[in-house]
Amino acid sequence: MIAPREAIPVAVLGATGAVGQTFIKLLHGHPWFRLAEVAASERSAGRRYGEATRPIFGDLAPEALDLPVLPCDPALVRSPIVFSALDAAVALDVEPAFARAGRTVLSNASAFRMEEDVPLVIAEVNPDHLDLLDRQRRVRGWSGAIVTNGNCSAIVIALALAPLHRAFGVRRLFVSTMQAVSGAGYPGVPSLDILGNVVPFIPREEEKVREETRKFLGELSGDRITPAPIEASVHTNRVPVEHGHTACMSVGFASSASPDEVRAAFCAWQGDPDARSLPSAPSRVLVVHDAADRPQPKRDADAGRGMTVTVGRIRSDEMLDVRLVASGHNTIRGAAGASMLNAELMVARGLLP
Amino acid sequence: MIAPREAIPVAVLGATGAVGQTFIKLLHGHPWFRLAEVAASERSAGRRYGEATRPIFGDLAPEALDLPVLPCDPALVRSPIVFSALDAAVALDVEPAFARAGRTVLSNASAFRMEEDVPLVIAEVNPDHLDLLDRQRRVRGWSGAIVTNGNCSAIVIALALAPLHRAFGVRRLFVSTMQAVSGAGYPGVPSLDILGNVVPFIPREEEKVREETRKFLGELSGDRITPAPIEASVHTNRVPVEHGHTACMSVGFASSASPDEVRAAFCAWQGDPDARSLPSAPSRVLVVHDAADRPQPKRDADAGRGMTVTVGRIRSDEMLDVRLVASGHNTIRGAAGASMLNAELMVARGLLP
Amino acid sequence: MIAPREAIPVAVLGATGAVGQTFIKLLHGHPWFRLAEVAASERSAGRRYGEATRPIFGDLAPEALDLPVLPCDPALVRSPIVFSALDAAVALDVEPAFARAGRTVLSNASAFRMEEDVPLVIAEVNPDHLDLLDRQRRVRGWSGAIVTNGNCSAIVIALALAPLHRAFGVRRLFVSTMQAVSGAGYPGVPSLDILGNVVPFIPREEEKVREETRKFLGELSGDRITPAPIEASVHTNRVPVEHGHTACMSVGFASSASPDEVRAAFCAWQGDPDARSLPSAPSRVLVVHDAADRPQPKRDADAGRGMTVTVGRIRSDEMLDVRLVASGHNTIRGAAGASMLNAELMVARGLLP
Amino acid sequence: MIAPREAIPVAVLGATGAVGQTFIKLLHGHPWFRLAEVAASERSAGRRYGEATRPIFGDLAPEALDLPVLPCDPALVRSPIVFSALDAAVALDVEPAFARAGRTVLSNASAFRMEEDVPLVIAEVNPDHLDLLDRQRRVRGWSGAIVTNGNCSAIVIALALAPLHRAFGVRRLFVSTMQAVSGAGYPGVPSLDILGNVVPFIPREEEKVREETRKFLGELSGDRITPAPIEASVHTNRVPVEHGHTACMSVGFASSASPDEVRAAFCAWQGDPDARSLPSAPSRVLVVHDAADRPQPKRDADAGRGMTVTVGRIRSDEMLDVRLVASGHNTIRGAAGASMLNAELMVARGLLP
Repeated sequence: MIAPREAIPVAVLGATGAVGQTFIKLLHGHPWFRLAEVAASERSAGRRYGEATRPIFGDLAPEALDLPVLPCDPALVRSPIVFSALDAAVALDVEPAFARAGRTVLSNASAFRMEEDVPLVIAEVNPDHLDLLDRQRRVRGWSGAIVTNGNCSAIVIALALAPLHRAFGVRRLFVSTMQAVSGAGYPGVPSLDILGNVVPFIPREEEKVREETRKFLGELSGDRITPAPIEASVHTNRVPVEHGHTACMSVGFASSASPDEVRAAFCAWQGDPDARSLPSAPSRVLVVHDAADRPQPKRDADAGRGMTVTVGRIRSDEMLDVRLVASGHNTIRGAAGASMLNAELMVARGLLP
Repeated sequence: MIAPREAIPVAVLGATGAVGQTFIKLLHGHPWFRLAEVAASERSAGRRYGEATRPIFGDLAPEALDLPVLPCDPALVRSPIVFSALDAAVALDVEPAFARAGRTVLSNASAFRMEEDVPLVIAEVNPDHLDLLDRQRRVRGWSGAIVTNGNCSAIVIALALAPLHRAFGVRRLFVSTMQAVSGAGYPGVPSLDILGNVVPFIPREEEKVREETRKFLGELSGDRITPAPIEASVHTNRVPVEHGHTACMSVGFASSASPDEVRAAFCAWQGDPDARSLPSAPSRVLVVHDAADRPQPKRDADAGRGMTVTVGRIRSDEMLDVRLVASGHNTIRGAAGASMLNAELMVARGLLP
Repeated sequence: MIAPREAIPVAVLGATGAVGQTFIKLLHGHPWFRLAEVAASERSAGRRYGEATRPIFGDLAPEALDLPVLPCDPALVRSPIVFSALDAAVALDVEPAFARAGRTVLSNASAFRMEEDVPLVIAEVNPDHLDLLDRQRRVRGWSGAIVTNGNCSAIVIALALAPLHRAFGVRRLFVSTMQAVSGAGYPGVPSLDILGNVVPFIPREEEKVREETRKFLGELSGDRITPAPIEASVHTNRVPVEHGHTACMSVGFASSASPDEVRAAFCAWQGDPDARSLPSAPSRVLVVHDAADRPQPKRDADAGRGMTVTVGRIRSDEMLDVRLVASGHNTIRGAAGASMLNAELMVARGLLP
Repeated sequence: MIAPREAIPVAVLGATGAVGQTFIKLLHGHPWFRLAEVAASERSAGRRYGEATRPIFGDLAPEALDLPVLPCDPALVRSPIVFSALDAAVALDVEPAFARAGRTVLSNASAFRMEEDVPLVIAEVNPDHLDLLDRQRRVRGWSGAIVTNGNCSAIVIALALAPLHRAFGVRRLFVSTMQAVSGAGYPGVPSLDILGNVVPFIPREEEKVREETRKFLGELSGDRITPAPIEASVHTNRVPVEHGHTACMSVGFASSASPDEVRAAFCAWQGDPDARSLPSAPSRVLVVHDAADRPQPKRDADAGRGMTVTVGRIRSDEMLDVRLVASGHNTIRGAAGASMLNAELMVARGLLP
């Protein structure tokens, strides 16, 4: 592993929003990266970050307060590493502009995730998909790159399935999520919609979970990814939880497996060795909780500083092989922390220009 | 239909709890039944109902306040119709004592639901299962009877599946529930467990949903019920909602059906004709809501005064046939209101002694 | 009392918002008024009401669904009675235009409440303030009128204080509110701000409570209102409650009074006789609840179909005279229902053109 | 300051409850204290701590899991420092038994707080009150001692008032609290009582806030404490918040003071110098937050690892001198953390036997 000799300056695009603020919180005290620049929409540009930003999750990191908010323009934002917390519609134009200008964009936006030449990566699961960058640079002519990290629910689900897919081959999946409001950003979900309520619909979410899970668990051969052959029946719901997406899953395998075998596969799995010692990596990426009523988002989302996915309730199923529940922190493991880990992985592998 | 000439006196067992209070609320102004007696545990017996009872869902019906709380003893509780909101463990002894003493017990408890000679009935779905009472009386030698109404989630799920089972034959079911805290009674779920949280476990709930759904949708032939041949993968969750259980379902049929056909089956179905004009019957037992984000417990649980189940998000599934969401009021449609409707049905059919 | 011979057509301005929807719910089945027209911002105008409106509190009244949404222009909206749920900034221009055009505007907006010639009226408390309309018409030259009904917290507080002010003279008031999110409209309070949280600030709310309470309880002499001489120390807070504003109050009187005397004053008071038999009047406008832990918004907001204010915890105070708690439904008693009652009062008194 | 040469063994009484678990969390990694023993009721005694305890706030500290749960008997619990999270009724007998046996009991229970010879101490506010221990030992003949730390709301309120009382003399106080459910322990508040609700009553809480605030801010002369001469009008409320009690206060001084002067007094105050460098002391015990809508429990309770009280909204009052809002973490600053700091203070001052 190559640790950088001195802190690498990084920028955060979309820095005033919920995921943007989480990026800045994670960069506070980061051993490899130094928050050098923040950028946001025209509305905020030109003000101090501390003035332009309403603190959503407790107070803002002090080193960010006096940074000027820049427009999302690679001519003005100069850091080599760029974390993007932009909305998909904005990312569509802005992220390629940065990649073209030679920057490495670690994107939390959905705009490019399903492009054939764009890596969609969970550092512990499919770091080899970063090899797509050769094709990306070749095809697009970029000196920089776009690397994406996936939908917040898809990351939690794919992480929980990864050891099982390696061991038994996941073929059929029922999943029903209960997702935290922070996943919708700020102002996001109106309180009148969610206080004491459940909303059984999140626009485009079910498609993302299905498609991204297949890509995460897919096989790279040559410069092409074959999605994992998983039939998926997906339900996504919003619940009155602040942080932590929970997924109830029934899973069917190519080669059947018992709950005990599934449990053993979870305990044996530690993710890609390269990812294990990165600064943002938790001591254990997947934890099996044995209490009958866990995982729970309020009690488990912060495990591993928000980077651990907790799995529990592994039991047999009369229709598929097993049922289980997984839960993870959506704005950390499922968003900003995932991007951070991808950036660290790229640094460690010498993949940054 | 036989409407009673004068109001029939009824008793509520377990009257001080959450479901007991709901029974008393539903009996307020009831055209056929008159709340004559309340009974509860030894701890409450001997006090006035208004003193013994902490109002859980707004104030108590005035006619109940001065009733003396009786012990759950058929020698002291004399009404011919008895609604039981007892805990299963207590019901195990008390309900047969009342049946032996000639009373008709409409039970919300789980103690006898799965007994072969005990009807488990949703008035609109399987009223013919009341024919089991002949066998029950014959086998047990009771002059009275026990009729049960099922688990609160199972009722909502079975009601939503009933039209589809009749039309297409339900064979495979994935269901993940999000259940209200009122389903756990009072004091029930501690606030520290559920505020801003999801608990992915409810003791014995998944088994009840699976088994009761099959029995509700089963076929009576002779004096035996053949459970519906449905493979079911069930997940049950508690969420911070006051009233209203929501179920995400993926459904596979014997003969495949499209979302449009499913929608049509829902709209055509009105439940058993005998149930339609009962006092507690809603004008429509099943409503299909066409908004993309409905049903929602907070906005839909009170439909049809809590007796309507709302269905929505009917869409195709890549693994089974369709996905959909159903939601219903758990303490009314899923508990006290279901018992009430069963009692009304029995009166209308002349099944009361 | 003059009941109208036939239903009077009414319009709702700002019909798509939270208070607007509440107006339409209250007009459903109203014996005197008939919803004839709905109007809203340019964005909604021209569409069907059912299309332009997202249902916030359960489904919309069916008779409204097909009404065309009109712009807020008195040339197009022709009903003689106009209920206004407009934002203050919009009301500033629109409401006078309607008054000028001869319509009676029952306004829930804050724009004109503190104007010297504009009645700020709670029907049971200060119906005599409607006499200001002579001055209003004289000064402004309007053939119509604007009558306002006050801030949602101020109404609950003034209603609770009214009997005490008449009996003992309220002179000093500490009040700290806990206000429901529906008071902020839709989308209103973001869920990330209020789930599991308290926000101790509502813009301009403390001033409104202080000033409007004084005006409600003030004396009309000639064509001038002398505000009640109440020193007030006001705190206002937002809490995660859907409906129902709760106010903790410590009250000091001109002539001291004991908790028993205060209780007696509440029980004796029934509000202005003219208001008592109006269609929207509750059977009891103020109810004293004797349970140690009431009133509570969830359990008491719906009392009197949302028009009753519940008072409790009357106890002595070591600093002022008594402490007590009042709670009332903010979008009904504190907004749309208050306007409705004012309109009914005006009809009954023959004050409509 | 005397830091101990090696970690002092400590015991936690009532270790399985909400405050007990918080003690154990705070002792994890403590530089001076080592969790040696846990004790609880007979029901739990004899089992492993990890088996006897349901984790309320995330997982339990690993070093506690295998400790045997002892009965609350000084013959079996041998640590010289004993943290008590017992219920008041149990504490009444148990705590004196430990003090008699020579142990120093740092008590979170209310049983002895208002005894004349028992110090009620906030380390930063009134450490001199520990001098009462001479009288306590003389009168009671104990070789050990009981030191109490006050009600969770009273601590937050007294901390916020301390600088103002020193500077201007607090004479009149209106306070209305909004308290978190964790203050009621586990299982504590039923979810059906508090989801989407406010409960304006907490048994005995208003008296505690009034009396304890006066004792905290009282003067020690000789071996007697003269309570601060503060007239107080107190309202206490439960709200659906997990952690963090918030208090709205209007304050009148002996010598009047403006909001600016009050702000300056807060900023100048740092608490007793002896308390400042203790292991559990936050870098700033009181923080003035300048945002218009702060403090908020969800965003501010964790400030200073739960030991900082945040104050805001300092503004003038038309009745008393100023209004302000204070918020602090109830189970840390208001309970276990307060005891911990008191124990550290006693160690640092050489007050432990």
